[in-house]
This record gives sequence, C-alpha cells and structure tokens, in this order.
Amino acid sequence: MSKPEDPKVTTTPHILKEELLAEGKWVKLEQTTYVDPAGNTRTWETVKRTTRRTNTEADGVGIIALLKRTLHKDCVVMVKQFRPPLGCNTLEFPAGLIDEGETAEAAALRELKEETGYKGEVVGVTPVTCLDPGLSNCTTQIVLVNINGDDVQNIHPTQQLEFVEVILLPLDEFQSKVDDLLQKEKIIVDSKVYIFGMGMAQAFFKPRELPVLKQ
Amino acid sequence: MSKPEDPKVTTTPHILKEELLAEGKWVKLEQTTYVDPAGNTRTWETVKRTTRRTNTEADGVGIIALLKRTLHKDCVVMVKQFRPPLGCNTLEFPAGLIDEGETAEAAALRELKEETGYKGEVVGVTPVTCLDPGLSNCTTQIVLVNINGDDVQNIHPTQQLEFVEVILLPLDEFQSKVDDLLQKEKIIVDSKVYIFGMGMAQAFFKPRELPVLKQ
Repeated sequence: MSKPEDPKVTTTPHILKEELLAEGKWVKLEQTTYVDPAGNTRTWETVKRTTRRTNTEADGVGIIALLKRTLHKDCVVMVKQFRPPLGCNTLEFPAGLIDEGETAEAAALRELKEETGYKGEVVGVTPVTCLDPGLSNCTTQIVLVNINGDDVQNIHPTQQLEFVEVILLPLDEFQSKVDDLLQKEKIIVDSKVYIFGMGMAQAFFKPRELPVLKQ
Repeated sequence: MSKPEDPKVTTTPHILKEELLAEGKWVKLEQTTYVDPAGNTRTWETVKRTTRRTNTEADGVGIIALLKRTLHKDCVVMVKQFRPPLGCNTLEFPAGLIDEGETAEAAALRELKEETGYKGEVVGVTPVTCLDPGLSNCTTQIVLVNINGDDVQNIHPTQQLEFVEVILLPLDEFQSKVDDLLQKEKIIVDSKVYIFGMGMAQAFFKPRELPVLKQ
C-alpha cells in the first residue's frame, strides 16, 4: 500500500486522467491527475495545442538551416517576426507546425521555403523533443538543412510570408552577432538559438578538447 | 488609412488588448488582440504563467552546470524526472521558476542545489530568452555554472527533491550519451539539451573552423 506520508515509497509515476478546463481554437488547458513516484495522487495544469495531428509525434519543426555559398562564410538562416504572446519581435530559427500526414523533413523544407524563400536539403533530424515540459506537452523536431546558395533558385529567394524578416548570421560569429542584434533593438531571442551558440562556444573554448591549440 | 486587402502597408505591430479566457492556479489562457505589420487587427491565443514576479523579467532559469573533477572528464549535470504534461520522463538541464525578489543567478544556484545537491559558481548568464514564442510568453535565462567536484561538499551531494534523478554526461560525448539514453528507455529530451549538443557537434565537425585538422 502506498503511504502518502512516506516519500521513499517508489512507484512508476503515471497519468490517471486528463480533464479539459478550457479550450480555444488553437490551445487548450487541462487538469492532469497523476500518481507521483511516492504513490501520491496529484494534479498539474497542462497546456496542449488543439492542432496536433493523430499520426504525428511532434507538434512542429524547428529548422537549423546553413546557407553555403562560394566565397561567403557559411550562414545560419534566422527569422525575425512580431510574436503576439510576447508583444515584440523575436529572433528564432525558422519553425512551424507539421501538417496532417506530413513528415518532419517535409514540414521543415516547406516552412523554410515559406518563411525564407530558400530551397534546402535535409541532412539530419532529431528525435521528438519537448519545448517547455513543466507547462505543456508541446514538442518539436529540429531539422538540420543545408542550402546550396550558389543554386540559381537560392540566389534571389522569394518569401511567401510578408511579415517575416530573414537574417543571415555567419556560423563562426553566431553568438556575437546575436548579441549585436540584442544591443541594437528590443528583441527577444529564442532559448534554442542562444543555446546553439553556447554549444558552439563551449566546443571552441574547451582547450582540453582541442589539444592542437595548446602549443 | 490601413487597407486590410493590401499586405504591403507597413505599420509597427503592437498589442491592443489582452483578455482573459481561462485561469488556473498556475497557468492562464488569454486572447491577445494586436495590429499586424499590414495594419490589420487580428487575435492570437496566448498562454501565460500566473506566477511571474512583478520585478522579474524571466519566468525561470535553466542551468548548464559543468562538474569539474580531478582525473574525471568534465560532465554536464542533467536531471531526469516525470513530467505530467508529457506523461513520461524527460531529460533536461536543471531548471525552475524564479522566486520573488530573486536574481537569475541566485535562482540558478538554489535550483541546482535543490535538484542535484551540487553547490556551484555562476560563470555566465544569458539575456531573457523565450521558450515557445508562438504559444506563450514564457521566458527563461540560461545560467552557466561551474561546480568544483573536488570540494568536499560536492563529493557526496545530497538532493532536496526526492523524485529527480541526477545524470552526469561527459561534455565531450554529450550528444552520443543523450542518444544512448534515448535508446535505453522511453524518455523525451528537452529541445535545449539536444540543441546544445548539436551546437557542440557543429563546432567540432566544421573543418573550415579548425584548419589544423585539415592536414
């Protein structure tokens, strides 16, 4: 028998029920009743999108797109746009929801084309990852895309979305260029963007990892 | 005069009003009415936490904590826990909400101690970043922390949270170790964790950035 006063009791935590508290067109709020690892029954407030497709694991995709051009530095293709939840502009990787029956790879190439005009080629895709797991069940797959910038269709890309500004950031100056943008204007950077830069900086500035630089 | 049929008209997008649709104890759902860059008035469904402090810019902190020990590889301190919104275990950086009057740095050291038992030292903090800007106004600051693992108080760290499992991942094998965990059990990795690994891999495997490796 589980004893609520004894936190050492261990059980496999699991969901008992999910009850709708409120539902909009795009987003709903649920009360999740679950059994915690001590065997206690508890509740949690959970946000879900109403748009998740039945045969799709992730709600959306994020796209890390590298623009590769002769005689140019490799650049990461970023988007700046007004985001109503934040009431200001954000700097993000291109991203969007996955349509019914669509793969993450197809969604990534479609969203990249719509938001930036670039036609890319998928070189990698992550497992399903969560975005804010204490708040929502929302998930994304990050798709790594290469863009041949010398291809004629990518020399003057034409966007389909009017209100998204495309920003190219050189890969080898990624973090400092993000910081420059933050200095120039009121903008909120997506956490994934900042952490991608931190990952690159971490790798570059770990002398132990690069013994050749130690001399 | 703004003409709704002409998407070329540009104006500075802004919020007109935010109306409560539903409110729980921790989370609320609002309808945001805003003017888009074409001058059209539109609505958006926005999720907010009810817990954001008045004098705090970010809802929470995420902590990239590096455990540094003599004769060990540097390790990233990760946490595995059951997350009711997802109904399963997740692999995340330690994280938590910022308390009233608390700085991001103080919140990071407090949460790290509670969740993992480790006492760290802040070495960097990011600006306020957004987590899922198409859905919510939720924000986090990522705090980079070093842990002296040779310090006596960090040799046998004692957690204050019973249900969080601490997992140490060697920094130089970060992404492959994350993938190993995914193979072994049903677990969802936080997108920030995966992207941190992708950033490191991107930096390592860019021969152009490491000309010494070209020989």
